[in-house]
Amino acid sequence: MGRVTARRPVVRLVDGRAIERPDTLAVEEPLQIRVGPVVVTTTMRTPGDDFDLIAGWLVAEGVVSAAADVVAMRMCVDELNTVEVTLAEHVAPPRPRAFATTGACGVCGSDSVVEVGGALRWRPGDDRVSIEPAVVSSMPDRLRSAQKAFDSTGGLHAAGLFTAAGEVVCVREDVGRHNAVDKVVGAALRKDALPLRGHILQVSGRASFELAQKAAMAGIPVLSAISAPSSLAVDLARECGMTLVGFVRDGSMNVYAGISRLTLD
Amino acid sequence: MGRVTARRPVVRLVDGRAIERPDTLAVEEPLQIRVGPVVVTTTMRTPGDDFDLIAGWLVAEGVVSAAADVVAMRMCVDELNTVEVTLAEHVAPPRPRAFATTGACGVCGSDSVVEVGGALRWRPGDDRVSIEPAVVSSMPDRLRSAQKAFDSTGGLHAAGLFTAAGEVVCVREDVGRHNAVDKVVGAALRKDALPLRGHILQVSGRASFELAQKAAMAGIPVLSAISAPSSLAVDLARECGMTLVGFVRDGSMNVYAGISRLTLD
Repeated sequence: MGRVTARRPVVRLVDGRAIERPDTLAVEEPLQIRVGPVVVTTTMRTPGDDFDLIAGWLVAEGVVSAAADVVAMRMCVDELNTVEVTLAEHVAPPRPRAFATTGACGVCGSDSVVEVGGALRWRPGDDRVSIEPAVVSSMPDRLRSAQKAFDSTGGLHAAGLFTAAGEVVCVREDVGRHNAVDKVVGAALRKDALPLRGHILQVSGRASFELAQKAAMAGIPVLSAISAPSSLAVDLARECGMTLVGFVRDGSMNVYAGISRLTLD
Repeated sequence: MGRVTARRPVVRLVDGRAIERPDTLAVEEPLQIRVGPVVVTTTMRTPGDDFDLIAGWLVAEGVVSAAADVVAMRMCVDELNTVEVTLAEHVAPPRPRAFATTGACGVCGSDSVVEVGGALRWRPGDDRVSIEPAVVSSMPDRLRSAQKAFDSTGGLHAAGLFTAAGEVVCVREDVGRHNAVDKVVGAALRKDALPLRGHILQVSGRASFELAQKAAMAGIPVLSAISAPSSLAVDLARECGMTLVGFVRDGSMNVYAGISRLTLD
């Protein structure tokens, strides 16, 4: 188990005066993920909840969907920041994605949206949960108060899983926003709780295509972001029937997709 | 040339009232980069300045360092979002990085720092430029006023290259902060302006290891972030002699590395 924060000396300049003191920073360290002897990816992340991170990454990659798909994860004691994953026999390992030779006809956003749609095991659109807008409005504060490290570093993103009634199920932090989401989804996978029907995923920053894709792969019907979504995150949410909310601030919010899940007067 | 912003319908909820209107969002679209027939990476980015983005990415990967290293970049007209790069004969193409089989002894942050140190063509530490703290303090506002799209979407990161006197050289925006930095560095590469001695890179958010690495590979001696750096960004800056400033706000700032470049009374 690594450290989430670290101290480094800093010189603070205020109106030309220099004050030297220690500062608390969010830790960023590489993590190497192996499936058997094969390194499938190396990612920068904040240490802690590494098994959740890996499980969630495997969900987003479409490799696993149930706790039994992962037989074992082992933090290598003789190799720093390296985890070896053993998948069940029926599970195909992640496919190489970089450096494919292709004769394809280019890429576009709608291809990406269609590709995710085709990879979904559960369609968020089939989830009929109803959510009170007041619950959505309350989540940023609940997320923030559940964040352990943010206030000390200002450098960590957070993702929180909530019930439709607004109860906190799981909050995870990381220097990378995609990692925070992977950790939340992976914690659920390890409890065999996928698909996450009837749940809301609240993220601390913006909503990119990648975050919407990770939520969709976990079967989460509602994604809420404190800040702006990208065009392609909206397009993906509409395509797969997910509710996407952004700019959740001061009792107001923007609903970009799936407004039927929100109970309006 | 793609669009930087796009309109999507949104329902804005304020105190239970629903108002339907169009909203302006930051565009996110995939970009496929080929070197000859080989796809070397596909990345999500905001369209526009794609050749800058690719040139800067190639700098960060250690593939190119002078304008003449890139013979041609061609936006494929029959293939959406695909650019084919022709490198000069003396330039080795990017190496595959995913899915290497390894017998290595794990990974750690200091390995990553040492690896970047070994890949540098120019050491930021050799750059003796002096910067007034007031110049650093002024850069976030200058960056913001040079951002064309942020105010309309709230969803774009920005990176700005400044002279030591605080003059704007280049500002680029993207949904991905690493892409914004690649675009700035790539624009300089295409003008054959590397290494960027005596310059300051200002970024709109946090400073991760990846951003510090990209700045170092371009020979930039000063990296300034509006928000927090990660532990590994600080470690890399110290190792390669870069000045790293964070939390640049309201006339104050935190100096994490290389304070000797700042002129103090």
